[in-house]
Parts: sequence; structure tokens; C-alpha cells
Amino acid sequence: MIVYFDFLCPYAWRGLELSNLLGDRPELRHFSLVQGNHPENPDRKNPTWKLAEQSLTEGPGHQTASLAAFLAAKAAARQGDEAGRTYALHLMRLRHAEKRELGEAEVRLEAARRAGLDLARFEADLADEAGLRAELARDLDAAAQLGVFGTPTFVLDSGDAAYLRFSELPGSEEDARRLWSTYEAVLTSGARIETIKRPR
Amino acid sequence: MIVYFDFLCPYAWRGLELSNLLGDRPELRHFSLVQGNHPENPDRKNPTWKLAEQSLTEGPGHQTASLAAFLAAKAAARQGDEAGRTYALHLMRLRHAEKRELGEAEVRLEAARRAGLDLARFEADLADEAGLRAELARDLDAAAQLGVFGTPTFVLDSGDAAYLRFSELPGSEEDARRLWSTYEAVLTSGARIETIKRPR
Repeated sequence: MIVYFDFLCPYAWRGLELSNLLGDRPELRHFSLVQGNHPENPDRKNPTWKLAEQSLTEGPGHQTASLAAFLAAKAAARQGDEAGRTYALHLMRLRHAEKRELGEAEVRLEAARRAGLDLARFEADLADEAGLRAELARDLDAAAQLGVFGTPTFVLDSGDAAYLRFSELPGSEEDARRLWSTYEAVLTSGARIETIKRPR
Repeated sequence: MIVYFDFLCPYAWRGLELSNLLGDRPELRHFSLVQGNHPENPDRKNPTWKLAEQSLTEGPGHQTASLAAFLAAKAAARQGDEAGRTYALHLMRLRHAEKRELGEAEVRLEAARRAGLDLARFEADLADEAGLRAELARDLDAAAQLGVFGTPTFVLDSGDAAYLRFSELPGSEEDARRLWSTYEAVLTSGARIETIKRPR
């Protein structure tokens, strides 16, 4: 299983918490809401404005914060897939539960501390900015190719994929299992369900 | 239960077939894709361009056809709720299974024949154009208030509502039940699922 997510997105935070509750170990990939919704990218599948090519210091705050968070997550993942997942979960909690700023280096470092990373290695990996940008670009290209439009988007091993937006975090593993079963039932329905969406 | 639908929409056709397979008797209400997507209606909940006020002869073909089909369905429903549902199902089949034109009076009449309506009464009710337009306007206002954006949108007795888009018509009542259970599970999930949508 793969999950596409963006640190900016509270629904993606809940998606990572859901995977964590279930004990799932999805492959983490990034999708960028800033890139996906950028006015220079009218064709979702062929973006010309790419976040991975943007400045870390110039530009709107949420854009530079988003890029910095993605690169930090890629650096964390160099300590292993599990380290990458734990780091992403902690950075999400810092942002969405504690309302800290992704744009602050101290917040990104705090996530590494909480995730129990080797901090010296984390800093060293962060310094390979070109390599991290290349990894991010691969994720964002894969997301574009699949047509991802929001996060979290899970891709099952069957290849079925869908955006899953829910607003109440399951309080127990049992509730998490029920939510996941419902999501899987939608994706594997013989009726080929494409969308279920509440009006707002 | 209520179902909002538009005769223009093949997904709404499948929605009505689903209700029919299940033996459900939803209250039929109209939502207009032409009105909903009209450039003069940037605020979905407060439309200023209203289909029920438009000409039956002047304007884009799909717009006049859509209006004529809605008014015919309202005329049919004056012979009873069940007559209204049967008429809508037959007009949907003529449009989406047989690819006939909603804009042709003969097609709208053929649906009345197939539904076993009293044809003289159908023609007489059709002549009350102002009354039918007023009924249509009430449906479209209710749809706007709920924030309906596509069809079919079902409203459960619990008040939970969602657009349901599926592309494979269930072949049996059992398959229909499975699809409906999945849809209900999404709407009643404690996680408050707002959207499940495949990328395209």
C-alpha cells in the first residue's frame, strides 16, 4: 500500500494516524496541494510549475514551509522506512494537533527528536538538498501521473486508489478497522463506485 | 428517503435503477446540472440564474431539453408518487439506454406510455406550465439549500446525504443491496467520512 500525503493537510494527518492505528506500513509518497492547485498547472497530470524546483526562502509562507517539510521527511526516511513513517506522524502531530509551524526549522527538528532519529545523521542528510529535491520530484511526478488531487490518497495493492476524507479520528483500533473496511468496500465494489461525497 | 437527480446525468439514471432494484420508493426531487454549473451562479447555494425561469424553446439544446424533461416528470407525478417514479425511470432508460432525445416531445410521451400513465391527463397536466415550473423551482431551491452539486444525491431519513457515482449497474437485487450497504456504511461511519473519490 502507498499513501500520498501533504503535511499541510489535516485530512492527511488523520490518514497517517489511521494507518498507525491499524499497524499498517504504507509506502509514503508526497503530493503537493500547492503544486496541484497552482494556477500555472491547469492540467493536473502535466504540471509545469513544480514545487521541488522552488526556493526554500522566497515565496508564500505555506509554500516554503511545505517544501521544507517534504525535504525534512525525505531526510528522515534515509534512516529507514519505519523512521520515515514515525517522523511524518510526529511532524503531522506537531502541525495539526499542536499548531506548530512547518516553516520553523526547530519544529522539523523536534519531530526528529520525538521520532527517535539519529539527529546528527538527520542534519547531515538534510544538507543533501539536491538529492532530497530529486526524491521529492519523483513522488510529485508519480502523484501527477496517477491524477492525485487531494490527500490522503491511498493506493491499495490491487491498484485501486482513492482520496479518503474523514473528520473524526477513530478512537480505537476497532473503530479504525471499521473505517478501513468501509473504505475498502467502496474501492472493491463490483458497482465500480467512483465517488461518494457529501454536499457541504 | 429523497433522491435528487437530473435526466441529463447517466449516473443519476443508475441511481434510479438502483432504487428500483431495491424496491425503494424515494421522494424524487430535481437538481439541475445546467443551473448548478451555470457561470452566473458562482455561489451554489444562492443561484441567480434559474432553470425554471428559462425558455422552453430558446437556448442551448441540452438546457431546453432538460427543462422540458423536468416539467414532464412533474406532470407525470400528478398521477401519484409511484407514477412519477415509473415515469422518471422510463424516461431515463429512453435517454441513457436507448439514446433518445429528451428534447423531443414524442420521447417524453413514449415514457408516459411505457409507464402506463393516463395519457390524456398527462397532456392536460403538461398544459399547466406555470404550476409545473413552480414545482420545479421548489425542488431546485431545496437542492441549492442542501448544497447538492451532482446527481444522484440521496438523502437518508437520518438526514445524511451524499452524491453517489458508480459506473456498473448492479445485475441483481443482491448486488444492489451490497452497493447500498456500502453507501450507507460510508454515510453513517463514526469517522464522519466526507469524501471517497478515485483519481481519474
